[in-house]
Amino acid sequence: MEKLYEGKAKEVFKTDVDNEVIIRYKDDATAGNGEKKDVFEGKGPLNLAITTLVFEKLKKEGIPTHFIKTLNERDMLVKKVVILPLEVIVRNISAGSFAKRYGVEEGIVFHKPIFEISYKNDDLGDPLMCEDHAIALGFITKEEYDYIKNMTLKINKLLQKIFLEIRLKLVDFKIEFGKDREGNILLADEISPDTCRLWDVETNKKFDKDIFRRDLGNLIEGYGEVLDRLRG
Amino acid sequence: MEKLYEGKAKEVFKTDVDNEVIIRYKDDATAGNGEKKDVFEGKGPLNLAITTLVFEKLKKEGIPTHFIKTLNERDMLVKKVVILPLEVIVRNISAGSFAKRYGVEEGIVFHKPIFEISYKNDDLGDPLMCEDHAIALGFITKEEYDYIKNMTLKINKLLQKIFLEIRLKLVDFKIEFGKDREGNILLADEISPDTCRLWDVETNKKFDKDIFRRDLGNLIEGYGEVLDRLRG
Repeated sequence: MEKLYEGKAKEVFKTDVDNEVIIRYKDDATAGNGEKKDVFEGKGPLNLAITTLVFEKLKKEGIPTHFIKTLNERDMLVKKVVILPLEVIVRNISAGSFAKRYGVEEGIVFHKPIFEISYKNDDLGDPLMCEDHAIALGFITKEEYDYIKNMTLKINKLLQKIFLEIRLKLVDFKIEFGKDREGNILLADEISPDTCRLWDVETNKKFDKDIFRRDLGNLIEGYGEVLDRLRG
Repeated sequence: MEKLYEGKAKEVFKTDVDNEVIIRYKDDATAGNGEKKDVFEGKGPLNLAITTLVFEKLKKEGIPTHFIKTLNERDMLVKKVVILPLEVIVRNISAGSFAKRYGVEEGIVFHKPIFEISYKNDDLGDPLMCEDHAIALGFITKEEYDYIKNMTLKINKLLQKIFLEIRLKLVDFKIEFGKDREGNILLADEISPDTCRLWDVETNKKFDKDIFRRDLGNLIEGYGEVLDRLRG
């Protein structure tokens, strides 16, 4: 298969169908903008299985996604999109870069979810943007910004419900959007413990990439438990 | 006089009137969050004279400010306010931290001014905030945010006019707001070449603190010319 793109945790391959590509989930883990690196055998298949279950649930609820179907334990067939250069983030509870940036502790529950975007650019360290910046730099129009914000807050509500059902608090998450040939904006990328902070509702135990970032234990066990709980 | 506060470029003193304080303009210049420091004899009086002229013009146009009157070449009498912990920034043309943060060149003229706030906190490096962050952290309410944004964009239009009349482009500027005893939000701090980027309309020559930041020449001459032009 012809490789179109390789990112830190995934590769994208061409297919015979003009409008479809395959995303392959790698076992690589990176943190701190690539400063910390490791490989965890089985991480790719776990993230793919979790993303598949989550995308299927979101699709049922009417969220437009790039997801078509999962082909095997590493490969997902998706609609080809041009990814917008934005990391779209929702924060329900303070943690990670938010807590560090503003000098506050982790665990503050916000009255209202915080919607945040950053410029997806490793060289610049994925800098935070506000609405005006993204529009002034021509990344999106005002209408697209509003659409993405509304869609993301809707996704947040659905994800909170999905994870609360398996006794996990959705602390924050990062998603990406892409534009298809027709100009539709679709939820793309993945939704997994690599891209969501998930804390156990009772113990606050972390079931996400912070296990790796902060050396908190066995990543594969943590991600595996998220999948087990999702499967019921 | 009893000193209430000392900042990088100004000191605040108590007066006999409960509701009024004196702001003394120092000759100190700092850049890069205090990393670069110098003293320019006469900078304080120049900034005070410029701020006085600008505040008087804004007051005439109905902008509520803390300004009462200027007492001498270093001291301004102002209404006592509690300064909000926000740097409020407007950008009409890309420059400085914006250009660096997003990896774009300076001099891009924006179709619409960019409104930006950052958390006024030296230890954290005055991090950028968006609306949701400032509200979630309890710095301001949604109503206050909207009020400040509208007021700031109005001030931008007035300042653009004031400076264009003296053949200077208002590239960007930083202002601060404070709350008085009655809860009114007033424009506070200063408006000077320390807090505005000002480029000559024909030559793009810089008449602002970038002279110091980038060692571009004689700061006192530059600031002096702004004052001379304002005085006509």
